[in-house]
Amino acid sequence: MIERIAILGTGLLGTSAGLALRASGYRGAITGWNRSAEQARLAMRMGAIDAFESDAIAAAKAGQVVLLAVPIYATLDLMEQLARVLDKDHLVTDVGSTKEQITEAAGRLFNTADRAAFLPGHPMAGKERGGAALADASLFRGAVWLFTDDPAWQRSPRSAELVKGWRELVVAMGAKIVDLDARRHDQLVAWVSHLPQFTATALSSLLEDAVGNAPELKDVGGRGLREMTRLGASPFSMWRDIAHTNTKLIETALLALEERIALIRENLRNPELREEFEKANHFRRDG
Amino acid sequence: MIERIAILGTGLLGTSAGLALRASGYRGAITGWNRSAEQARLAMRMGAIDAFESDAIAAAKAGQVVLLAVPIYATLDLMEQLARVLDKDHLVTDVGSTKEQITEAAGRLFNTADRAAFLPGHPMAGKERGGAALADASLFRGAVWLFTDDPAWQRSPRSAELVKGWRELVVAMGAKIVDLDARRHDQLVAWVSHLPQFTATALSSLLEDAVGNAPELKDVGGRGLREMTRLGASPFSMWRDIAHTNTKLIETALLALEERIALIRENLRNPELREEFEKANHFRRDG
Repeated sequence: MIERIAILGTGLLGTSAGLALRASGYRGAITGWNRSAEQARLAMRMGAIDAFESDAIAAAKAGQVVLLAVPIYATLDLMEQLARVLDKDHLVTDVGSTKEQITEAAGRLFNTADRAAFLPGHPMAGKERGGAALADASLFRGAVWLFTDDPAWQRSPRSAELVKGWRELVVAMGAKIVDLDARRHDQLVAWVSHLPQFTATALSSLLEDAVGNAPELKDVGGRGLREMTRLGASPFSMWRDIAHTNTKLIETALLALEERIALIRENLRNPELREEFEKANHFRRDG
Repeated sequence: MIERIAILGTGLLGTSAGLALRASGYRGAITGWNRSAEQARLAMRMGAIDAFESDAIAAAKAGQVVLLAVPIYATLDLMEQLARVLDKDHLVTDVGSTKEQITEAAGRLFNTADRAAFLPGHPMAGKERGGAALADASLFRGAVWLFTDDPAWQRSPRSAELVKGWRELVVAMGAKIVDLDARRHDQLVAWVSHLPQFTATALSSLLEDAVGNAPELKDVGGRGLREMTRLGASPFSMWRDIAHTNTKLIETALLALEERIALIRENLRNPELREEFEKANHFRRDG
């Protein structure tokens, strides 16, 4: 049913989506665009896209489904531009890590009976480093793909069909769909995604100051240290927009963690330490 | 040269050491002891020990090298008992995670020309859960095995030979030996081992309170969340002694982390955030 897809942004997620679509048996056209043509060329060589445009709007017009796989502020910019040129024969969707602002813009700019549809999405998949070169057809396999659709939106039958078709393709890529509202999404990811990231960044940055001048000593830490600092390699360029668009909820989570660490620090020799370990054990009881 | 080894404590590390010794080609006797005989029986069935004693002292007497693989306070207790019954034909060594108190006791109780030798050791290997059942012949492969020997100790030629022989067996098990003094050891592990553990415990305990009642939402976090909380499964029983014997240095590291997280929290929208990401990236520059 969906025969033409445009992927705007052929970095890690966009290129992985192209590869995953092909691996799932999707045989329609895939047109790409990327701010730097070099990444688009690489995505094409890898087989994630068939062709690419040097203009984002031209690429979008070539797709029935337009997947925005760019940082959050770039997504919001493209939404403004695309709302003016696309019609109800198009569905725009995205992969942005925070959803309140994007979902608000989707309601304001899209999703009436005579406009293009917008389905806000967020695959919980990624790597600590970006770029088409690291793209992987199995990146979404077993991952959760969140959608923050709004039941109040009034879509044309054609738009509703495209939404249904894209959800089927997401499942075909191996992801598990979870629907929730945008506010709940941003709260949830503040805890289970943003808090772990900023914790790893803080820990890695601190360790760089404490032991970074003795690289051989990093070996001493073993697997635990490697795991706890792997996300320390994540680029600022990706997290800046997340920090800007989910600031309050991330602040709340970080402050709660500071307090929890202080509680442990003040009770290293007291029975309260046992309670913290038991609560932590309980969180990990299933995995 | 070493023909008889006693392993006191056949949990994860002790049983893994027995399996690793066998895998490395060691053909001498291995006698075990464990506080609960059930774990000793399991270690024997797994081939990590040939036989076990119900009395720790009897087991120790059967070994030229006595490996203490029990928690830190149990190690200190056994050191007091063994110093009275073993002589210079014995080397005692251990796997304790903090070394200042054990190294102090080793100087006080062992390591004169007419007493047994004690070589304080600490393999940087483990799992988030203990017990013989999880033991692994390759646990020490590629891991660092720290020793905090004191050059001032006066050992008999026989003792010196046993120390040399044990170091060779540790290398045969696949570990990389690093020698450092006990104070430096405890400082270093406070940063690269204890800080990551207590951070994971704090994060996991906090998440148990925040999202623990919705287990399906843990899936949403993906690999990053799993890695950042894996050590949350570590048992209090193992970490209590570490918290008690390295309290000051762990407090210093935890306080520094609280401050670093606060710095990030206060700068989510400021250029300082970039500096923290860049420092964290730098820590991870080698992988």
